[in-house]
Amino acid sequence: MSVQQDNKLQAIIAHAKEYGFIFPSSEIYDGLSAVYDYGPWGSELKKNIKDYWWKSMTQLHENIVGIDAAIFMHPTTWKASGHVDNFSDPMIDNKDSKKRYRVDHLIEAHADKLAMEGKKEEEYALLKNMEQLLAKDDYVALKQLIEDNNIVDPVSGTCNWTDIRQFNLMFSTQLGSVTEEADTIYLRPETAQGIFVNFLNVQKSARMKIPFGIAQIGKAFRNEIVARQFIFRMREFEQMEMQYFVRPGSEGDWYQYWKEARLQWHLSLGIPASEYRYHDHTKLAHYAKEACDIEYNFPMGFREVEGIHSRSNFDLSQHQQYSGKKMTYFDTELNQHYVPYVIETSIGLDRMFLLILSNSYEEETLIKDDGSNDSRVVMRIPPVLAPIKLAILPLTKKDGLPDVARSIMNMCKPHFRCFYEEKDTIGKRYRRQDAIGTPFCITIDHQTKEDNTVTIRYRDTMQQERINIADIKAKVFALIGA
Amino acid sequence: MSVQQDNKLQAIIAHAKEYGFIFPSSEIYDGLSAVYDYGPWGSELKKNIKDYWWKSMTQLHENIVGIDAAIFMHPTTWKASGHVDNFSDPMIDNKDSKKRYRVDHLIEAHADKLAMEGKKEEEYALLKNMEQLLAKDDYVALKQLIEDNNIVDPVSGTCNWTDIRQFNLMFSTQLGSVTEEADTIYLRPETAQGIFVNFLNVQKSARMKIPFGIAQIGKAFRNEIVARQFIFRMREFEQMEMQYFVRPGSEGDWYQYWKEARLQWHLSLGIPASEYRYHDHTKLAHYAKEACDIEYNFPMGFREVEGIHSRSNFDLSQHQQYSGKKMTYFDTELNQHYVPYVIETSIGLDRMFLLILSNSYEEETLIKDDGSNDSRVVMRIPPVLAPIKLAILPLTKKDGLPDVARSIMNMCKPHFRCFYEEKDTIGKRYRRQDAIGTPFCITIDHQTKEDNTVTIRYRDTMQQERINIADIKAKVFALIGA
Repeated sequence: MSVQQDNKLQAIIAHAKEYGFIFPSSEIYDGLSAVYDYGPWGSELKKNIKDYWWKSMTQLHENIVGIDAAIFMHPTTWKASGHVDNFSDPMIDNKDSKKRYRVDHLIEAHADKLAMEGKKEEEYALLKNMEQLLAKDDYVALKQLIEDNNIVDPVSGTCNWTDIRQFNLMFSTQLGSVTEEADTIYLRPETAQGIFVNFLNVQKSARMKIPFGIAQIGKAFRNEIVARQFIFRMREFEQMEMQYFVRPGSEGDWYQYWKEARLQWHLSLGIPASEYRYHDHTKLAHYAKEACDIEYNFPMGFREVEGIHSRSNFDLSQHQQYSGKKMTYFDTELNQHYVPYVIETSIGLDRMFLLILSNSYEEETLIKDDGSNDSRVVMRIPPVLAPIKLAILPLTKKDGLPDVARSIMNMCKPHFRCFYEEKDTIGKRYRRQDAIGTPFCITIDHQTKEDNTVTIRYRDTMQQERINIADIKAKVFALIGA
Repeated sequence: MSVQQDNKLQAIIAHAKEYGFIFPSSEIYDGLSAVYDYGPWGSELKKNIKDYWWKSMTQLHENIVGIDAAIFMHPTTWKASGHVDNFSDPMIDNKDSKKRYRVDHLIEAHADKLAMEGKKEEEYALLKNMEQLLAKDDYVALKQLIEDNNIVDPVSGTCNWTDIRQFNLMFSTQLGSVTEEADTIYLRPETAQGIFVNFLNVQKSARMKIPFGIAQIGKAFRNEIVARQFIFRMREFEQMEMQYFVRPGSEGDWYQYWKEARLQWHLSLGIPASEYRYHDHTKLAHYAKEACDIEYNFPMGFREVEGIHSRSNFDLSQHQQYSGKKMTYFDTELNQHYVPYVIETSIGLDRMFLLILSNSYEEETLIKDDGSNDSRVVMRIPPVLAPIKLAILPLTKKDGLPDVARSIMNMCKPHFRCFYEEKDTIGKRYRRQDAIGTPFCITIDHQTKEDNTVTIRYRDTMQQERINIADIKAKVFALIGA
């Protein structure tokens, strides 16, 4: 990350805290690493992102229905999915300090040191070497790489390492209190399996015909060691996933369809296409047919925000094998039973949130009437996602203006989230609404009492126009696209 | 629970599964005890309950804002809240089988046996005795009670018991992978503490003035041993909580206010007042000033669905003490710093869901035109909460009726969830919509092509009337109160 990129991310983090979007978790206890809480406006923005996705996926697609599966699942689920055996990172222990490190993080830290010392070529060679060995799971050579580079434990200062071993990234806990028999269960590391194990229950109860989809929004948990890049990688995070079940042989077409449809969804929010790119995977899981990421140009560079995967019938077949229950669908047109193929679209809700913050945040320089410079921080959040749609501001506290403002508030607040404020200068109040991304402000002034008009002020342009009180509701609905 | 009550609950459970409201979790792996998944129509109903509560609490109350705190919190949170020390149940181990039991469950199972043997008086005496000893935490006498009644372990058949000890109900897991240093953290057993630790961050960032509230919807987890009464008591469940921060001395008035306001919220859904009652607590936590439950007449009897608690400044004071950070608010009117008092309203989302199912489910006997009897199962879900608002049904698949129906579908589906179906007789299609609680059906018939009218059929009365296609949208909006 360049200094400039890092500065922008730091500015967003500070703004998000000051204006009630995101707080470090348990901050009064000095925080909990890689865990964050969504504040007053953050929780509204997050809910609006969820609602926008849910509506677009379920309400607007007749052949997609939702589910809301529990975080706890039967432990065999994770045997069948491969997570018990394969969802792990290579780790190494220092024999002197007894500390354990993720191998890639240990080597990356050393590479950073080389970079700071100006040894750019050595840094590059080390990282390239590491990536090749990790791809081959060659742990003997990786340990050799650590020793050859004399990478020492920052605690003990020694190079006295154990062999490299795999450690699972799933959080586990104990269910039930009969200790001897307590089941070890996992916090789900992905939401997808909740869809797969319910495939037939959903298909039958909602009478779905292939092709059809099942959508879900929910928490997942991964015991990542390093907390970095704010809410981009968290230990507790939320996914918005849709699994689309199709006839074998049609998966290529449906993969293309969803790859395009999902990018269009992002663009529908008014985010420039130039900020997005596809990253097609070349290295695929053995069962996968095709896979790509939709990447967004975050402050730290292009990173994955969403994945589209053609997963074959791997998951359903695995569950069929482990459960002994049939996972087949009867296709009345083909007069044939089969295990459907699956296209998955999986978007990180927290990453989408960071995307919206990143795309919205702007420190804008303004020129005042006297020619001097002013500035504002404006969050250009898409109106449909904005935490507050309309601020209602009486120009002064006198002359009955608050009464008029209150009646407008009462008229509007059943329909969309409004914010009433009468304290401070109107300029200061506009700035505060800019900072939390409120797209429209209504100002009630003395003319209002004469002709029932108010000023509507637009966040993005700061332009103002007079409109009738009676037209406010319809105007805001039209502007937010609701 | 009487046989009749049990029958109704069993009928609801079966209906909920068949029609896609609730499935047992991981059913293909024979389920996970006391965990359930919400299906296609269940996930929509659950979301609609959340949205209804969230809107009523935040959008319609200018002085209540939301947050969305993580499930993971700093472990000291649960020291301060008292959960580490006090959130536990008395347990006993059999020395021969090595099995562990919750004391109350062990005694209750024996009482059930007495009841089945017709020993009603002995059953009553045993349960009364147990309750008194549990209230006094008298574990020595409780063990004596078990031995005096010769209550044996069902596995070993012996009465060879250890002393009674407390076991905590919180789920724990390990954060981080440096094993020696891994923190034991808990899955939050309640959402309230996420509000308390963020109190000042919220108050400052959203510029709140007392009295004000913080609302939150989220998962909580309790390692309950016995799975009973469907989704009424689950290990993983969801809470909708609001903490209202008030000036010390005003807590009595605000407690009354919220006690009444919360019951009105329930009644606003059209559920009869006769199905509700208050249960005022006589035994209070040492810090509590007042507390009551709002109880609903579930199939298994009156049970708590929501609690209103006057919690004094206990939680904030505890966090102040444990964190060393000030949790005081500066009251500009009084020119005084203080730790605010708190009124809590806490509703179980899953219980509210079961309440809606219980209140909606009806097996109705109908009289056909020829005088014979017919019947239907109808879910009288409040329209604002119904998973699907409008079914759009062409009378036949011929004569271009599906084309007209499709154009109505396209007109309506951006505004509320619609369902299109053209298969089977119209009577069967109405019944299926009754069973999932769809309040309105539109039927497109041959007259539609002549005069642009359709039939709207009302779920509750089964009455029908003709309306213009152009009026459908406004009519449905008016009927669902949106």
